[in-house]
Amino acid sequence: MAKLKPRTLSGFLELLPERQVQFERMVETLRRTYSLYGFTPLDTPLIEASEVLLAKGGGETEKQIYRFTKGDTDLSLRFDLTVPLAKYVALHQNELAFPFRRFQIGKVYRGERAQRGRFREFYQADIDVIGDGSLDILNEAEIPSIIYKTFTALGLKRFKIRVNNRKVLGGLFALLGLERQSADVMRTIDKLEKIGAEQVRAILVDDFAVPAATAGQLLELLSTADPLASLAALKGRSALLDQGVEELNTVVRSMSAFGVPEDHFTVDLTIARGLDYYTGTVYETVMLDHPEIGSICSGGRYDNLAEYYTDKQLPGVGISIGLTRLFFVLEDQGYLNDHLLTAPADALILPMTEDLSPAISFATTLRDAGIRTQLHGEKKKFKQKLAYADKLSIPYAVFLGEDEVNAGKVTVKDLSSGAQQTLSPAEAVLLIQTGLTARQGGTPILEPEGTNQ
Amino acid sequence: MAKLKPRTLSGFLELLPERQVQFERMVETLRRTYSLYGFTPLDTPLIEASEVLLAKGGGETEKQIYRFTKGDTDLSLRFDLTVPLAKYVALHQNELAFPFRRFQIGKVYRGERAQRGRFREFYQADIDVIGDGSLDILNEAEIPSIIYKTFTALGLKRFKIRVNNRKVLGGLFALLGLERQSADVMRTIDKLEKIGAEQVRAILVDDFAVPAATAGQLLELLSTADPLASLAALKGRSALLDQGVEELNTVVRSMSAFGVPEDHFTVDLTIARGLDYYTGTVYETVMLDHPEIGSICSGGRYDNLAEYYTDKQLPGVGISIGLTRLFFVLEDQGYLNDHLLTAPADALILPMTEDLSPAISFATTLRDAGIRTQLHGEKKKFKQKLAYADKLSIPYAVFLGEDEVNAGKVTVKDLSSGAQQTLSPAEAVLLIQTGLTARQGGTPILEPEGTNQ
Repeated sequence: MAKLKPRTLSGFLELLPERQVQFERMVETLRRTYSLYGFTPLDTPLIEASEVLLAKGGGETEKQIYRFTKGDTDLSLRFDLTVPLAKYVALHQNELAFPFRRFQIGKVYRGERAQRGRFREFYQADIDVIGDGSLDILNEAEIPSIIYKTFTALGLKRFKIRVNNRKVLGGLFALLGLERQSADVMRTIDKLEKIGAEQVRAILVDDFAVPAATAGQLLELLSTADPLASLAALKGRSALLDQGVEELNTVVRSMSAFGVPEDHFTVDLTIARGLDYYTGTVYETVMLDHPEIGSICSGGRYDNLAEYYTDKQLPGVGISIGLTRLFFVLEDQGYLNDHLLTAPADALILPMTEDLSPAISFATTLRDAGIRTQLHGEKKKFKQKLAYADKLSIPYAVFLGEDEVNAGKVTVKDLSSGAQQTLSPAEAVLLIQTGLTARQGGTPILEPEGTNQ
Repeated sequence: MAKLKPRTLSGFLELLPERQVQFERMVETLRRTYSLYGFTPLDTPLIEASEVLLAKGGGETEKQIYRFTKGDTDLSLRFDLTVPLAKYVALHQNELAFPFRRFQIGKVYRGERAQRGRFREFYQADIDVIGDGSLDILNEAEIPSIIYKTFTALGLKRFKIRVNNRKVLGGLFALLGLERQSADVMRTIDKLEKIGAEQVRAILVDDFAVPAATAGQLLELLSTADPLASLAALKGRSALLDQGVEELNTVVRSMSAFGVPEDHFTVDLTIARGLDYYTGTVYETVMLDHPEIGSICSGGRYDNLAEYYTDKQLPGVGISIGLTRLFFVLEDQGYLNDHLLTAPADALILPMTEDLSPAISFATTLRDAGIRTQLHGEKKKFKQKLAYADKLSIPYAVFLGEDEVNAGKVTVKDLSSGAQQTLSPAEAVLLIQTGLTARQGGTPILEPEGTNQ
């Protein structure tokens, strides 16, 4: 029969088993951390009616969407987890309790141009708190602590959370007479880190008719060493600015009670995060040793989650981690902890007698004790079976030969040390359990030595 | 602005938070059980190139597939987890260790006619063991124990695993001179339970030219009270039958060492499981009190996983659970354990002072102790906040008023008993942890009282 060459589509990540275990360890860590903050897990369909998913319409995103018909239904694959959340909350608003706190970790689809490190199918890990009509600033203040806990739990140490407030930016623009160009100005200052102050100034002046003096003032304000002090000096000149500054101060003041160390957190007035969605606090997170990869966790406060579906005012605050891309970058930069136990089993049993019952019974004993166990019953040489255990990094091999079976014992070999002992089944369970306890733990991320500590 | 009515597509399950938690508890239980048997988790793309996914071609499935183009690429959504596994193993065969044991729990898509209890997007939970050229019968013998452990861990008690062997059926057909019609006969006896012996006999005789006497002989053999004894009497008359009987005996003999109680397991010669795929042991699992819903976990042994992609012989054995449908049936029949802790948080903190720092700090303390905690900072009445905790079944509320803050204490209220105590933070942590330990546990399934025990 002619064979078809098996392949996986470009832009679709498919991991080998060891990497998959590392990836899932990251997902578990996120789930656990998000749960600690009282978020409930959610799962929504990957396919939605196109009219529902594209209610907002337009934009760059729409071109990238996987859209198709089945029968006479116009369908699309979700391109983020926010629109499905908006639909979910609008649809189920009478059955949910508000504030509604949910996390969702799932795949989304964007038909981007394929290139290294860009994915067409990728996991997003989102949390959002949705209020019913109003939502207290406390929720915005809590977000940096969730980001801090999340990355710390993953094993990352050298990162910083940057916070700003859209009302502060809006207030500053108003003060400087830039209300008319505020969208353009916002978009331009968002590029500050990428293109530098001089280019930003040139664009503001040349493209958006900002007076040179105003551009200078703005850039000076944005890059001030002590933003909160500089902002304090402007108090009373704009109601919007005052409100933004108060919110920003509330967020900053809470950081220590929320357990966020000072060196992991900063106010950065240049953080803008897009245009028409966020209305209050905005967040970015950068790896100190790899600022070039951009923000690894971003989000912000918005006023109206589901305006396309309902008249109900649903303000919220949320953050998102592009998990597939993050994993790719971490692997690329040598940040994955390869000491994690990624073996599919803790113990491999090698039966060496005709009657397999004693080996099977011991496998059952190990499993009942919570030890992940494989029975190797293939007709292969002893050496090949050990090579199999070795290739998979299975920590323990268990031999059951005639002698062991007759004596009611088993022989346990620690495959990393080579140490071998013949023990009673109960002793063997204890030995393996103790050894596993020592081997378990460890975070998915291990910062490479030589990072700038 | 005109609003668009939010909706979820028909045939796509979207759960409310409490149900979602129950569903995820089932998924976690499956992951844990599969891991105990040494299976490694796998994740493959939901989209594959159509030529890859449809390499086998034809059949009922193809009509149901979600197929579309993006750019000039012909794409399809996976309709099961077996074809992607075949692709994965063929593609990565040089990087994998064999036998390759993997589990995968993921969504698949079939554009079936929408009707109650039928889903177009649904989770499958599969395990497979893939051998490299050969695969020992021990792997087939192990599968019933995995099925037993899985459903027991889920909380189901009244179920039975039915086992047969395709070689036994093939051998019987050969003995009875039915080789020519074997596919038709196989398909017909697969309906035995549904339509009864008389109808099966009529179809065999009228439609497939089986002599009446032969049909009678076959039906008698298949429904014999002691299949293994009846088969033993036929020893030596067909090599295929002898091999099948030996395999079946090996599987049955291992059950006790694998820890499967006798009353959860039976040999049933009428189990056929489709036509052209399985070659050895086949499995079905039925709920004793709901045989009408059919098999809740099925599978079998096959000889050639990836013949469309590679010349390499890859025999395997696997089982699959249709998780979404199972969940739907369990809910429908009242089998979901509604005593499970499905609240998004273990504790809800109600700050009652202007300065929120003490409340925030205590939230941080609780979270550091592993207690899932929400801070309720909304401007709502005390009663509304308690109603919120009540609606979500959050077990504990924590009050921090002036008195508590000044005394360095917190007041903890057990919302199920109503008991309220003012304690030091450390005492409060201990109280909540102890209470949660008592509340945790419980299986996702709780058989309804009055089932036929």
